[in-house]
Order: sequence, then C-alpha cells, then structure tokens
Amino acid sequence: PPPAASCPSPSMRAGPPADSAMKTLRDLGENNLLRGLLPRLPRRSDTVVGPGDDCAVVRVAGSADDWLFTTDPVIERRHFLPETPARLVGRKAIARAVSDIAAMGGAPLWILVDLVAPAATPVARIRGLYAGLIAAAKKWNLGILGGDTAEGDTLELHITGVGRLPRGTAVLRSGARAGDLVYVTGALGGAYLPGSRHHLLFEPRLDAGRFLASRKFATALMDLSDGLAADLPRLLDASKRGVRLAAAVLPLSRAARKTAHPLHHALSDGEDFELLFTVSPKNRARFEAAWKRQFPKLPATCIGEILADPRQRLLQLPDGSSTPLRPGGYQHFLSAKAPARRP
Amino acid sequence: PPPAASCPSPSMRAGPPADSAMKTLRDLGENNLLRGLLPRLPRRSDTVVGPGDDCAVVRVAGSADDWLFTTDPVIERRHFLPETPARLVGRKAIARAVSDIAAMGGAPLWILVDLVAPAATPVARIRGLYAGLIAAAKKWNLGILGGDTAEGDTLELHITGVGRLPRGTAVLRSGARAGDLVYVTGALGGAYLPGSRHHLLFEPRLDAGRFLASRKFATALMDLSDGLAADLPRLLDASKRGVRLAAAVLPLSRAARKTAHPLHHALSDGEDFELLFTVSPKNRARFEAAWKRQFPKLPATCIGEILADPRQRLLQLPDGSSTPLRPGGYQHFLSAKAPARRP
Repeated sequence: PPPAASCPSPSMRAGPPADSAMKTLRDLGENNLLRGLLPRLPRRSDTVVGPGDDCAVVRVAGSADDWLFTTDPVIERRHFLPETPARLVGRKAIARAVSDIAAMGGAPLWILVDLVAPAATPVARIRGLYAGLIAAAKKWNLGILGGDTAEGDTLELHITGVGRLPRGTAVLRSGARAGDLVYVTGALGGAYLPGSRHHLLFEPRLDAGRFLASRKFATALMDLSDGLAADLPRLLDASKRGVRLAAAVLPLSRAARKTAHPLHHALSDGEDFELLFTVSPKNRARFEAAWKRQFPKLPATCIGEILADPRQRLLQLPDGSSTPLRPGGYQHFLSAKAPARRP
Repeated sequence: PPPAASCPSPSMRAGPPADSAMKTLRDLGENNLLRGLLPRLPRRSDTVVGPGDDCAVVRVAGSADDWLFTTDPVIERRHFLPETPARLVGRKAIARAVSDIAAMGGAPLWILVDLVAPAATPVARIRGLYAGLIAAAKKWNLGILGGDTAEGDTLELHITGVGRLPRGTAVLRSGARAGDLVYVTGALGGAYLPGSRHHLLFEPRLDAGRFLASRKFATALMDLSDGLAADLPRLLDASKRGVRLAAAVLPLSRAARKTAHPLHHALSDGEDFELLFTVSPKNRARFEAAWKRQFPKLPATCIGEILADPRQRLLQLPDGSSTPLRPGGYQHFLSAKAPARRP
C-alpha cells in the first residue's frame, strides 16, 4: 500500500507486570486474567468452540445447524452515560450481541436480558431502555426470551444472545494463515469522540458476516469492539501468526479524521463494531469483486498481510519504515492507564 | 391437615400504589415493573414459553428436545457479602441457574458467565469465584461456554444457563387445576439466618424435577427463590387459580424452627430453592408411593390445595381459622419495606 501523511505511532503503553505477586485486577488486566482462567473452564464434548472467540459454538447431535452463544454487559458510566437516551442504551445492548453473532457468520435468534438497577432509578428510564430493547429485537427479528431483574448500585444490562448457522460454517479467530490478506469493513476510530454517536448507532455487520462465512471467503473473522490495536492481536494469538499492518491505508472514520491524530484513534478507539477478517491471497480478486457486487456501499479495505512468525507484528508507517505493533485499545481493569475512549 | 402450634400471620405488607404517576423502581416494585414489560417483549413463533416462568422454552424444527434458557444475577451485598467465601459465591451462582432448569424438569448443559468487578478487586477473590464456578460446573456436568468480563462498581456474576428436556415435557407454572394438591420438597425458611448457609449450599432439585416431569406427576412446577409467600402467588397467577394453604403442615427448616416465628420464616424467607408443585388428587397415592421409593431421604410435603377461584387465596391457621394469604417474601426494588432476609 502507498505511503500517506505522517502519523503518530500507536499506543506504546507497557504491558502489565508478569509476576505472581499481583494483588488486584488493576495490576493484572483483563487479558492476563482471561489467559489464566479460560483454559481451566470445563468443556463438554458437544462444544466446537469454547471461551475466547466472539461466540461459543455448540453442536447438537442430528442438527443441521450449530448454535452460537454470547454475552455482553452494558454498564452505566462504562458503556453509556447517565444522560445517554435510554432507548439508545437498549439498542446498543442488543446490537453488541448481534455484532458478536455476525462475527461468527451467524444469524441471531433469541435474546435474554438481565437488568440491574438502583431502586431510585426513574421508571421512565427503565421503560425507555425496554423500548430500545424491543425496537432492536424487532429490527433484527429476535425473540426476547426473558431474563431477570435485580436491584444493584449501577444501571446495567447483561445481554445473552443466541444464534445459529449451518453446521461447520462458523468462522473463527484462529483460521488466519501466513500470506492471508487482512481486511476491515467500514471506517475506524472515534466512536466516542464528541459529535459521534457511532458507539450507540452502529450497524452490526450481519449480512457481511453471513456473506463471508457462507461464501467461505474469510479464513478468520472477528468484530472490533476494543479497537484494532487490541483486537487484531487477539486474532493473531488465536491463529498463532504475525502481521504487517499498513498504517497509510487504514480507513479512518469522519470523527477520527477531524482530530490531530486520526491513526491513533483508528488503532486505539473501541466500539467500531466493524468486521476484521482475513482472506486467502488466491481468492483476492474473486472476493473483492463479489464484495463490491453484494455491498456496494460498505467498503472492505485491505489493511495488511498475515505473517508466519507470531512474534512479527509490524506497523508499516507511511514513510515506509516499520515499528512494532503494540497492543493498545481498551482493556478492562486497566482503564486508568488506557487511552481515554470510554465515557 | 391437623392443627399445630400457633404462629404469626404472614407478611401483611401493603402492595405498591397502582397509579401511573409512579416515579422510581422503589415506588413500583419488581412485580409491577415486570407486569408492564413482559407482555410487550417480542416473541418468535419458535418460542413455547416466553418470559415469566423459571426458564424460557424454545422448540427447534426436527429436534427431539426442547431447549431451556435462564439467567440469574448474583450481586455482592444482595446475594452474598464481602466476607462470603468466593468459592461458595461461584457455586451459588451456578446452582441458582441449575435450580431454574430443575424447576422445568430439565437437564442443564451449558453455562455462560458475565463477570463485573471493581478494578481494586483482589485477584485471589476472582480466582476463588472461578474455582467455585468450575467445581460446580463439574459437579453438574456443565460446560462453561465463556462470557464476558467488565469493570464495574460492584462484584457481580450474571449466569446464563442452557438446558434441555424431551420435547413437550416442560412443566410450567400455569398448569395447576382446581383440586390439585400443593407440595413442596425439603423444608422452608431461614436460608439467611445466622448459622444457616443454606443460601450458599443448597442442592438444586434436579433429579426431583426430572422425576416430576418425566413421570408426568406435576401439573405445575417452580422453584422457591423469593419465599413461598412470594412465589406461590406467581404459580397461582400463571394458573389463574386460588389456594388453601395449611400453615400447620408447612415443613420448617431447622434454622426456622430455632426462631420465635418459624412460620413467618417459612413463608417469607427467600432462597429455599426447593420445588413447589401441584399433583392431581387422583394421582396422589401413586405419586406419594413412587416419590418415597425414588427419594427416600427427601420429603415431599402436601401443604394445601388449589382452588378454582383465583381470588380465593387462604392461609388456614392451626386453630382452624383462615386468613388471606398475603403476597410476601422478597421483591427487588422494595427491599426497604421487605422482610430482612437478604444480606
């Protein structure tokens, strides 16, 4: 890809310490916590994909479909603000789960809702939340199966999404091979910047996900929820591969382009909810032609290439030089150190 | 049933006001909130049972099984205390979901876990929670499919449980008929009293639930999570029936019997996690004989009779007189007025 305007290097934040005398989640961080816990979780033989991908995948004897499961929290002052319109909070809660199902190539079916709210919450706010949930469920043809309500200190929605797709067609994070091309849909960065309501109004890439899975174009697939610099390493870790990412061609959102550091926003801001996927180079021409026919209004931009060596993770800067691609983006429990991008 | 020792009447707490100028959840209460919201939730044609029972039930074309879904929050200072051993918190979180699946007559399969925790939470506490989740999952042969972790103000687990049962065999809250006999398993009350850890160590009645469903003994079935005086009215509302409950024969837990008001505790305390069910009187002898053979150590006590008129809800006192059975037990958002039984 051609060099373009100069840009700052991505987040260079140091990783958390690795010793075992860690005391709190703030010391450990979300990634280290999960690395320790996920491998120990009990798994049944009917489970095709366990923890660590966008959805879990289970297979039921005799069924033509595999089943997808995902959960997503939406928490006041983390994912929305007290002044955020309640309807949009409800919409966002469901859209996050739908995006996870899209990121496997599946179709969403059912939703469950755990509501936590302080007793002093105005009833009108709860009704607004549910109006948003109901409208979103209708938009994506979901049934709301129920859930639970409980009193708590903070207003929260916990959404469980259930989906399905034809048996064996789920696209995982782990399928990227050396030489595969890396793509993203849409444009990146700035979902939380002033003037942008992208984090509330994003469109989960359901049709794109199904297209990528059913046409077998994508070798690996995930959605971008914590920022490219946080999420791409997860795909690379799952695939045991490296990457050369071309800074100059990253598609920048309008909100990011208005800032002094658009590339930083494109790499580090969360809640893009675009798809990140890889395509075999031998399918490039066929894929790009089919994509343009199917999604004339939604760009899919080639932003880099998968490398064989998992330790090689390079950001190619517009001047042609390369710098290590540092994990960045949002990570729970490290927010004091993380780039300011959650409300 | 024979009269026994005198006992106080159940909770006489007045219901919330019914006008539409209500302002907060505290004014409205959980029951009124749900009454307004549940009927508006979108439902797909594949849904056999939507919101309002212990689990939702969905039916998939061509499957010999129906699928069960439930969610349960476990929140610090509501369902456990900062000093509660973390392993027991994890156990409880899963056991609550398992109990909901037992209360349909189903078998649990998979669990998802949404964890919310303050960044200052000691890592050892989170590891303890997961040790409890993992041990409980192994005990009940569940796969943990994954979930999500997020930073928040309060330590919380949100569990989604998925189960199944043979198609068409789920036992609902709505099946009680006039003349049916009302039963509970085990003993009631005092799950939170000093010296009792029942709310942490209860055994979900999985085998009993499957027995009641597969042998078609139960016409209606639910688990007791908020207390008999809160939960029985929910079964009656769903069945559009009344009840005559015999105070003298309520099985009292050891913890409740040590108090001055054991009947009050049996009626109003939450988290018994026993099964409440109804049996047709024509099956009484056959049911009771089969139960004793199957569960020699677990009592199933007949505590009353279903009445045709849904407005007739009577508590027959030990002296032979009757008093209206007032809804009591725990209701979220009304906790300031509710009996003290949550931590």
